[in-house]
Amino acid sequence: MSANTSIQSVGMRFIQTWNAHDMDEFALLFREDADFVNVYGSAYVGRPRIRDEHISIHATVFRDSQLSANEMRIKQLTDTVASLQMHWALVGIKTPHGQPLPDRKGVLTLIVIKTGDGWEIAVGQNTDIVAPPG
Amino acid sequence: MSANTSIQSVGMRFIQTWNAHDMDEFALLFREDADFVNVYGSAYVGRPRIRDEHISIHATVFRDSQLSANEMRIKQLTDTVASLQMHWALVGIKTPHGQPLPDRKGVLTLIVIKTGDGWEIAVGQNTDIVAPPG
Repeated sequence: MSANTSIQSVGMRFIQTWNAHDMDEFALLFREDADFVNVYGSAYVGRPRIRDEHISIHATVFRDSQLSANEMRIKQLTDTVASLQMHWALVGIKTPHGQPLPDRKGVLTLIVIKTGDGWEIAVGQNTDIVAPPG
Repeated sequence: MSANTSIQSVGMRFIQTWNAHDMDEFALLFREDADFVNVYGSAYVGRPRIRDEHISIHATVFRDSQLSANEMRIKQLTDTVASLQMHWALVGIKTPHGQPLPDRKGVLTLIVIKTGDGWEIAVGQNTDIVAPPG
């Protein structure tokens, strides 16, 4: 399995575990000390925090959400570090009171590190695509 | 000069060149093939594109803007790759027609790579801090 296939599989697992709302498996994609910044600019440090915050939000606003990738671009930074940039769409979002919210698009960047024979997320950051002020 | 000092200086130069609106110097912080995702989820590839887009926006909405960092956290990922997470505030933003816009806060992540005796930005992503839906 080539490095790109393995790295891409991290992106695919990100989507699969999100859509299964299995935040235990989702969290296992991250290194123990990983950083993650979500679309609201909330900065989480460490796999347990990333797991707990995603469990919380997948119990409410993201409970029925489904994520898909329009594009996944991998760039090898060094032999053991790569970036994966995913352009995503998210549907099925609701308020905590169950009212539907508009679909969203955004860009997710994952910095993955080779460990043993796999790749783990060391740094992740997510940004909604919105119109610039004008 | 320790690695952390050098990496932190990339973050400091990011702020200094932004506040001087010197986008040529700003762009030189990035590797030739760098990726940058701005707060609007616009994904730019390559130093020339990053430079041109920032020249454009610093001629209008960010012309009088001033950036500052509340916090700058560095994490070494490997010997030659590190992440720098900056919690920032931006004031002096205006519409293209010169009307003042609210101050903003956000989180910027820079993935820097050691090249020769310096560090360059390979990947950058920026996210506004906003309230989650509720």
